[in-house]
Amino acid sequence: MSLKGYTVPRTSTGKASLVPPPPWHYVGDFLVVDYWAEPEAVRAVLPEGLEPHPDPGRCAAVFADWQSCSEGGEELLDPIRSHYREFFIVVNALFEGEEVTTCPFIWVDQDFALARGWIQGFPKKLGSIWMTRTFGLDVPADPGLRPGGRHGATCSARGRAIAETTLTIEGEAAEGPRHNAPPIVNVRHFPRLAAGRHDDPQVHELVRAVSRDRAISKVYAGPATLTLHPAPGEEHDSLAPVKIDRGYRFTFGYTVDDLETVKELA
Amino acid sequence: MSLKGYTVPRTSTGKASLVPPPPWHYVGDFLVVDYWAEPEAVRAVLPEGLEPHPDPGRCAAVFADWQSCSEGGEELLDPIRSHYREFFIVVNALFEGEEVTTCPFIWVDQDFALARGWIQGFPKKLGSIWMTRTFGLDVPADPGLRPGGRHGATCSARGRAIAETTLTIEGEAAEGPRHNAPPIVNVRHFPRLAAGRHDDPQVHELVRAVSRDRAISKVYAGPATLTLHPAPGEEHDSLAPVKIDRGYRFTFGYTVDDLETVKELA
Amino acid sequence: MSLKGYTVPRTSTGKASLVPPPPWHYVGDFLVVDYWAEPEAVRAVLPEGLEPHPDPGRCAAVFADWQSCSEGGEELLDPIRSHYREFFIVVNALFEGEEVTTCPFIWVDQDFALARGWIQGFPKKLGSIWMTRTFGLDVPADPGLRPGGRHGATCSARGRAIAETTLTIEGEAAEGPRHNAPPIVNVRHFPRLAAGRHDDPQVHELVRAVSRDRAISKVYAGPATLTLHPAPGEEHDSLAPVKIDRGYRFTFGYTVDDLETVKELA
Amino acid sequence: MSLKGYTVPRTSTGKASLVPPPPWHYVGDFLVVDYWAEPEAVRAVLPEGLEPHPDPGRCAAVFADWQSCSEGGEELLDPIRSHYREFFIVVNALFEGEEVTTCPFIWVDQDFALARGWIQGFPKKLGSIWMTRTFGLDVPADPGLRPGGRHGATCSARGRAIAETTLTIEGEAAEGPRHNAPPIVNVRHFPRLAAGRHDDPQVHELVRAVSRDRAISKVYAGPATLTLHPAPGEEHDSLAPVKIDRGYRFTFGYTVDDLETVKELA
Repeated sequence: MSLKGYTVPRTSTGKASLVPPPPWHYVGDFLVVDYWAEPEAVRAVLPEGLEPHPDPGRCAAVFADWQSCSEGGEELLDPIRSHYREFFIVVNALFEGEEVTTCPFIWVDQDFALARGWIQGFPKKLGSIWMTRTFGLDVPADPGLRPGGRHGATCSARGRAIAETTLTIEGEAAEGPRHNAPPIVNVRHFPRLAAGRHDDPQVHELVRAVSRDRAISKVYAGPATLTLHPAPGEEHDSLAPVKIDRGYRFTFGYTVDDLETVKELA
Repeated sequence: MSLKGYTVPRTSTGKASLVPPPPWHYVGDFLVVDYWAEPEAVRAVLPEGLEPHPDPGRCAAVFADWQSCSEGGEELLDPIRSHYREFFIVVNALFEGEEVTTCPFIWVDQDFALARGWIQGFPKKLGSIWMTRTFGLDVPADPGLRPGGRHGATCSARGRAIAETTLTIEGEAAEGPRHNAPPIVNVRHFPRLAAGRHDDPQVHELVRAVSRDRAISKVYAGPATLTLHPAPGEEHDSLAPVKIDRGYRFTFGYTVDDLETVKELA
Repeated sequence: MSLKGYTVPRTSTGKASLVPPPPWHYVGDFLVVDYWAEPEAVRAVLPEGLEPHPDPGRCAAVFADWQSCSEGGEELLDPIRSHYREFFIVVNALFEGEEVTTCPFIWVDQDFALARGWIQGFPKKLGSIWMTRTFGLDVPADPGLRPGGRHGATCSARGRAIAETTLTIEGEAAEGPRHNAPPIVNVRHFPRLAAGRHDDPQVHELVRAVSRDRAISKVYAGPATLTLHPAPGEEHDSLAPVKIDRGYRFTFGYTVDDLETVKELA
Repeated sequence: MSLKGYTVPRTSTGKASLVPPPPWHYVGDFLVVDYWAEPEAVRAVLPEGLEPHPDPGRCAAVFADWQSCSEGGEELLDPIRSHYREFFIVVNALFEGEEVTTCPFIWVDQDFALARGWIQGFPKKLGSIWMTRTFGLDVPADPGLRPGGRHGATCSARGRAIAETTLTIEGEAAEGPRHNAPPIVNVRHFPRLAAGRHDDPQVHELVRAVSRDRAISKVYAGPATLTLHPAPGEEHDSLAPVKIDRGYRFTFGYTVDDLETVKELA
């Protein structure tokens, strides 16, 4: 009898798999800040195969409060298996002359999302992420999406502050954030443990994200703040903002069941 | 110099207080199931001063996904200080002939909410509570509030399942749940540790909740399920459902800055 | 039928009580740093009834990795109900001319310990506390209790760093830390929520801890570091060290089932 | 400039890597129960390449309370980066005629340990694991390692009970558990996301664990209990005990920096 399961643990039925098989359906609230870091710091996190963007230093900081499920939506009825929050940074770059983004740092608060990230080339660690919510009632505890509404988000990991942002909504925006708009190209990586091969990963390839059935709400925007904190065993603060454009609040959904390998790395 | 602070820890400024001073503003999503437990089990959790309700066994199970803040709303920008989720059961009773509810069991996932509960007479323990969300996008990961939309919620504590519920929305309801509609009367209780007085609490009084500025969304309702699981050191499962009416999904907000003591207990 | 239980929630059996009735038996590993803060900062956290110590600024920072149980020890078989870790600061003071300590700030990682703390006058909040362990094997992952053995501990709360310490063991010490040796006097405090009485706590009294059946291991000591980090909604960093004596590592056990009220506060 | 790091996230320095490069040094307390499950259930979790053991159904349930570090031991001073607890089951099998074990199910409470597990072929998910401790003091809260000392351990995941065990120490044992003694052979597995290749993992190989510098304490043993609970999305309870031999308590340390691939799987 052979074992089944998209990921470990694998069994005769596949039901215990940490990550159910694709497609994966997502919907979530986003708080995004378009900003610039030191160009040299951005260059230093580009994987092999990517070249610096002509607007060097271009980054986005992204907080997302997600609900996701696999086909059939069984996880939606058991929300500890569908909710998660994450914080990540993307930097802008060129791949074969085309504008792309890539994600050097990301934290997420659930194991299934961590594993799904590794499979897609997102370098996920566990963290604790929080983001202001809206509820559609005009009461003091609901900042709403109206002009003047103030929103915040934080990320910590291992009990240390990682990032925090605030956004004050000015109004609806004609379009969403620009710094995380290009297609994302990440590195899928899985190391070896065999003696002598610790520097020779078994999986090491540049991959381009593929998604479908994208949906987006109205977008709200306004002035934003962003702080990246140093922490032991972390390096994201090298991408601290030197200039901030603005922040965006919106809701977004899509489906993922494909990934394109664009280059094998050494 | 005297110390300030609505709760401990108290300092010269009061800023470190676990709970900021009232008023406390709340808004949150609710999933409520009207049901009946064994009449004898309900009677067994009534505090001194309350009499059984003429419809014996009447209960509600309530999941709430809250955002709250104190005056000025500072916590809204730092959502780890404003978000929390809770699960509780209310049973119906009479107080001096008037219909009331009382809360025998409740779990919450943040310390400030636990302390605020003790102050109001809610017998809070820590737990982990999860509840399906909606995002307003028509995508597979969003069950929405439309007929057929399926929602779930769970509560666990100390790594053991406490409760789970599901609701399938049929449509809008003219009114909300009836079993948790009456005013709530709880017991404020703070024990002594002095030798010989462990059974002689320093605070022991029946209190009636007072709130203002209530706001509510449209209410959606439909058939529901509810399971209460036994767990070590827990007794809420004595209130397991023998009959379920239906479930409700809505958003609710209010403000609390008062509490009425209605009876000193022995 | 009347309800039983040392704390809420109270039932006909008392089994669901968050905190079982005393006695409470404790054993745990300790990492303690004797140090001095700014004298004025220490004075600012003294509750009514305590006077400054003649050696102003005298403090201790205490990390403890506890296992506790009530009579019969049932919780020891279900360790999620017996383990907890905490970090606290004590400052030195005089009460009616006698040397005492008092605890202005403390974090703990379990609800039952938080509630037990409030009952004893410890102003507990939830936090995440970590402390290096020893295992008695001579392997690289075990720093041991030998000269040169390095130990660390951290505390965070709400995703922000609160405190960290390190100790390098020099050898056995003839005695333990001196700055937390005097008896501890804390404030039991339970506020009112009735309108107009938010500044008039229902319980507000100075209490002296009482314990029995104390046991202690050998004590190891050496040079130590201590950092107290600022964090939103926290004020413990006002007690940051201006001078550090040394650190101590030992194991300690005792039993608590009494508390002495020494003064009613206004 | 090329990126460094044993795992993601990879940077110019490698310092942000979730898992530092091998060697990895470990020390921890163990609670192990030798037992038998239904032979058919054991057969059903054997990966390709392993054959049933002649004593069919032979399993061990293992709780471990670990401290680990990489070369130099930096993590020992920051214990949130060195402590973790895990629960796993091993089943006995034959590989090319030799007695081996393999691990079908395992839960761990830290991200670095989850990733390190995947790299070694352990099918880790996140869970919450608790285990009775000893402190070397003769006090009621310390069960000690003496005859009659009672120890317990639990594992939960996603708020549901997974496993619990108890051990009553009878005395020292001449040797440790037998059911997890054979070398362990696991499956390293890393799936593809490219459309059409979801069933064609990129890494899929049978690996044999390699370790060195093993150290062990005295071993204590006695009668044990073990319960495996069903939970949504889990299948470990298929290996529930039909017969229990006994339980063991000991401390163990070793170093890992190698892994042997013994067979490529289809």
